[in-house]
Amino acid sequence: MPFAYTRTIHFPDTDAAGVVFFANYLAICHEAYEEALGAAGLELNRVFIANGLLCPISKSTCDYLRPFACGDKVRVVVRPELLTPDSFALNYEMFRLGPPEKRAALARTEHVCIRTATRERTALPAELLAWINAG
Amino acid sequence: MPFAYTRTIHFPDTDAAGVVFFANYLAICHEAYEEALGAAGLELNRVFIANGLLCPISKSTCDYLRPFACGDKVRVVVRPELLTPDSFALNYEMFRLGPPEKRAALARTEHVCIRTATRERTALPAELLAWINAG
Amino acid sequence: MPFAYTRTIHFPDTDAAGVVFFANYLAICHEAYEEALGAAGLELNRVFIANGLLCPISKSTCDYLRPFACGDKVRVVVRPELLTPDSFALNYEMFRLGPPEKRAALARTEHVCIRTATRERTALPAELLAWINAG
Amino acid sequence: MPFAYTRTIHFPDTDAAGVVFFANYLAICHEAYEEALGAAGLELNRVFIANGLLCPISKSTCDYLRPFACGDKVRVVVRPELLTPDSFALNYEMFRLGPPEKRAALARTEHVCIRTATRERTALPAELLAWINAG
Repeated sequence: MPFAYTRTIHFPDTDAAGVVFFANYLAICHEAYEEALGAAGLELNRVFIANGLLCPISKSTCDYLRPFACGDKVRVVVRPELLTPDSFALNYEMFRLGPPEKRAALARTEHVCIRTATRERTALPAELLAWINAG
Repeated sequence: MPFAYTRTIHFPDTDAAGVVFFANYLAICHEAYEEALGAAGLELNRVFIANGLLCPISKSTCDYLRPFACGDKVRVVVRPELLTPDSFALNYEMFRLGPPEKRAALARTEHVCIRTATRERTALPAELLAWINAG
Repeated sequence: MPFAYTRTIHFPDTDAAGVVFFANYLAICHEAYEEALGAAGLELNRVFIANGLLCPISKSTCDYLRPFACGDKVRVVVRPELLTPDSFALNYEMFRLGPPEKRAALARTEHVCIRTATRERTALPAELLAWINAG
Repeated sequence: MPFAYTRTIHFPDTDAAGVVFFANYLAICHEAYEEALGAAGLELNRVFIANGLLCPISKSTCDYLRPFACGDKVRVVVRPELLTPDSFALNYEMFRLGPPEKRAALARTEHVCIRTATRERTALPAELLAWINAG
């Protein structure tokens, strides 16, 4: 059962076209990732920073299917996917809740695990790997 | 009983100092205002835009008492206050949830009701006035 | 000669990892697009909104090659590309100015021209088409 | 002669009301502060972070006089003011360039110098003090 994150669209998410600014779809997906980790007991500070690790994003893609206006409810479903021992992807489906509920976007981010000090690639921490494999 | 809005602090809220960027305290307060209106059945689109009205902010103030880091929980308590027949204020208390819970900021925004077409001041809509007076 | 937009990275662009938040690379690319249109005498309000048109983004991709910190200078090179009579793409190269200058990201957005009222696809306005073909 | 920072208003600055979101006035003022320091040869990283210092904002106020739309030019004039040996204020005037040019906002932020490690107040660094006194 993949993790789902739901929240309301607010004014600061939108732009002068009256709908959520395209780059903010990705910011909302990142919120969902953080909430998914948090729900699994994996705090970013503890898993990454305390271990001298970072997992920067190497690639993002987003297909925009429908707009979101202020007051709309968005649900983001997050599915992790292992790529290599030191990288993973997150696949996001965004829904605009209804009725009727509509799929509003498909996004994906790819993450590489590096040592903060040297910026060299290193294996994913075991806890994170377990979460990815369970997804 | 004033309205309270709680959410988690996410990466996009923060800046390179590692904590929530000061202007984003006000954005989070505005989210709380939107949620308070929504909880009262007052959608911004219906109450304002459909009536040709806007309530732009004429003044903001914020006292910053404590920082918020990623993963912290923030609770915002919203207290509306009538100023004149065409203006109101929102008083916000922001708490960083604990334990121990700590007061993290005090903010205030002042709003003036205007006609979108002419930008002239006009009386607050009755529904909004009722919500302010109930706060 | 493609259009280039240069600016400094500021605190609000960054997140708690100390560098520009990944979704903000796309926001900075959109700034470059707006500046490119402006330099060509094509204001968004006049070309799109006054004609009842919108060009929402249907797809974005970004490859992140290097981080940006506060105070870094970013240069964004924008290359438009016609896709169909009612759609176009923008190809962005982002550089972190030096010395030495380094390529920091490659991004792309795809845009579809629609009528605001009906949300049906419609041909790109002639002025915009001319700008795309000149790029 | 106070420092002035000019830039164009972009889509990501705005919200669904069609104009710059109120909290973003303060973000734009902070950009102007960063540019003013940069123009004086004072990089945030070198002056603050390398010395184990931070100057978090303890208070902000903003009076909003006029809206900014996409494509508008904003000019921000920054005037520093010493408050105590360990704190200072920045007074901002925001103008919407014309013709005719109009004053659009008056903002102020108060900053306290602290040691990052202990979060205790400490005297402003000499370079910063010189810049404030010259303002």
